[in-house]
Amino acid sequence: MAYFEIEKRELLKGLGLMQGIAGRKTTLPILSHIYMEWKRNSLFLTGTDLETGIQEELSAQVQEEGKASISSKKIYEIVRELPEQPIQIQKKENHWIYLKCGKSVFNIAGLDPEEFPSLPTWQEKLFTKIPTQIVKEMIEKTFFAASNEESRYHLNGIFFTQQKISGKDSIRMVATDGHRLSLMERETQVVKGIEKGVILPKKGILELRKLLGDKEGNEEMGVYCNSTHAFFKVGKSLMIIRLIEGEFPEYEQVIPKNNDKRLKVGKEMIYGSLRRVATMVSERAEGIKLNLKKSSMELSSYHQDYGDAREEVDIQYEGPPIEIGFNARYLMEAIQSIDTEDIQMELKDEGSPGVIRPTSFETPSQQICIIMPMRM
Amino acid sequence: MAYFEIEKRELLKGLGLMQGIAGRKTTLPILSHIYMEWKRNSLFLTGTDLETGIQEELSAQVQEEGKASISSKKIYEIVRELPEQPIQIQKKENHWIYLKCGKSVFNIAGLDPEEFPSLPTWQEKLFTKIPTQIVKEMIEKTFFAASNEESRYHLNGIFFTQQKISGKDSIRMVATDGHRLSLMERETQVVKGIEKGVILPKKGILELRKLLGDKEGNEEMGVYCNSTHAFFKVGKSLMIIRLIEGEFPEYEQVIPKNNDKRLKVGKEMIYGSLRRVATMVSERAEGIKLNLKKSSMELSSYHQDYGDAREEVDIQYEGPPIEIGFNARYLMEAIQSIDTEDIQMELKDEGSPGVIRPTSFETPSQQICIIMPMRM
Repeated sequence: MAYFEIEKRELLKGLGLMQGIAGRKTTLPILSHIYMEWKRNSLFLTGTDLETGIQEELSAQVQEEGKASISSKKIYEIVRELPEQPIQIQKKENHWIYLKCGKSVFNIAGLDPEEFPSLPTWQEKLFTKIPTQIVKEMIEKTFFAASNEESRYHLNGIFFTQQKISGKDSIRMVATDGHRLSLMERETQVVKGIEKGVILPKKGILELRKLLGDKEGNEEMGVYCNSTHAFFKVGKSLMIIRLIEGEFPEYEQVIPKNNDKRLKVGKEMIYGSLRRVATMVSERAEGIKLNLKKSSMELSSYHQDYGDAREEVDIQYEGPPIEIGFNARYLMEAIQSIDTEDIQMELKDEGSPGVIRPTSFETPSQQICIIMPMRM
Repeated sequence: MAYFEIEKRELLKGLGLMQGIAGRKTTLPILSHIYMEWKRNSLFLTGTDLETGIQEELSAQVQEEGKASISSKKIYEIVRELPEQPIQIQKKENHWIYLKCGKSVFNIAGLDPEEFPSLPTWQEKLFTKIPTQIVKEMIEKTFFAASNEESRYHLNGIFFTQQKISGKDSIRMVATDGHRLSLMERETQVVKGIEKGVILPKKGILELRKLLGDKEGNEEMGVYCNSTHAFFKVGKSLMIIRLIEGEFPEYEQVIPKNNDKRLKVGKEMIYGSLRRVATMVSERAEGIKLNLKKSSMELSSYHQDYGDAREEVDIQYEGPPIEIGFNARYLMEAIQSIDTEDIQMELKDEGSPGVIRPTSFETPSQQICIIMPMRM
């Protein structure tokens, strides 16, 4: 009978990465399954919700080739509890599998693996290799600004495109929900298929982020897009994300050019103050007022039922007094996305969008967060 | 103006213990508040949901006595974000308070503190001092067996009573949901008001458990009951729990006397096996089958959709073969509550309740878990 042997740790790792994708949609029973195929010295796991697909290649000792389709949740539950020992899996009649580990024996019901939907085809040669760290960083610094409103589906993702920074090739990610925008670009090789830009859905991006989660700093990953999908190859894992159709807004015209009132402030200091003053914002508007004077900024908030809060923060600022309101959560999320010790804030007047950015950057790159002001 | 100063850490600790009680019921606005009274060198905090009440005495520097009633959730949110510095609180007109810490200033709306419901009165002299560790242990080893079904309200708690073990005074806790029962008793001083037994509600017990959470091993606490409430004094905290009215079932007749088929098994070993085999129990009945032979027990389960599981465990057993079914979760919770390396299981036949208990105990005490069998 077709069977293979695999270490518990290896199988558990592979199954873990599938859990956010397989079984998310329950309309089609086989989508709650994982497709397993063992051949040569590998077990290939595939999971998909038809929008995001993932395939993992795991090391296994294969005695005879075979395939199966098994409930993603159930096999994960089982493997999680197994002792740290080799697991033997064998195909049985009627699409069942037999699983043995230590003194435990399981017979697990399956579906016909031939009915498992196949992932879009990809071509190995199209992948551009770029540092994994760059993709991870660009996601971290943009995705929080994407919209969650289902009706604005073309904003429910990250716009992924390319650009020239001082004549050099770079890639850019942008996310916006109409009230704020985050943009990050880094110099690196050109990625195929993003000349005009593509929209990566937030859900797929979050799964990709999980996949990149435990990768080391100087590894590389493969990336490319075609007209319908984005392909990411990370180690022995492949993730395929269906692109969002639609036009991403003309975001470049939103980026303020003349915000001449510049201030510098310690990131942790302003973040701590914001968290405190944000305890008194109203639930709906979440507005916080910034009152800039020479070398100091007062943050204040007011809640109809609970009361008010204010705090003064030392800043580096030489410009004229200005009073401006922002959504407290947007401010905090933008500031949190910045890695430098100080942040720079650029304002124009109380009716114009504000800019938040790092004070410096080691490599040629650019990060910018834009937040629309609020009347308070 | 009436004001006091308190360390952030001290206030946060006190407010943290209130969070599970104050604000749990939203019918009466003032119940979502904390009553604060500062006098002499203390701040007294009080919270209640009218079933469980808690009062904390915290160290504070009081300039002038005062009282206030403030939203429990909001003040906790605020204090959590404050820097580790002294907090000044001052009473203002209209039941508001003014709070200052570092550079942060808050004005917080309140209600008339005179409208805060008072806790039942207690008498210091009625408290019996018993080791905190004993109460903690008795709760841990019984509360999981209490019922969650609202209709069986007299089973939604722990029966707390006294007993003689070999002529010596002891206290006993018992919980049952009708399908299983856990009992623990420990030799200690007599506690007033529990001669006939009282029923402590699960919710209050869980709050008491939190309160006991960070207490050291050899501290003592005060306990007593009257006809309506149980009183617990732990350090500078007082917890008052309204008793459940109703008759606790005649549980003593449920305790099997003639379970002559005894087996011994390593706790971690059987627990691990149960977790694995339990992945294949049916959602509703959660049944697991135990098949005892000389020196070995086979655990097995069957799920209509997912398949089956089995595992063999080495045991110390000399009796005749026996096959018996139990709810897997009940078995696991009972085994988990036992601290000894091995557990003892006592069975009679497939239709009679099973007993699980520790194999030894250092101090005169008794712990027993009883589980009704299942037809499988």
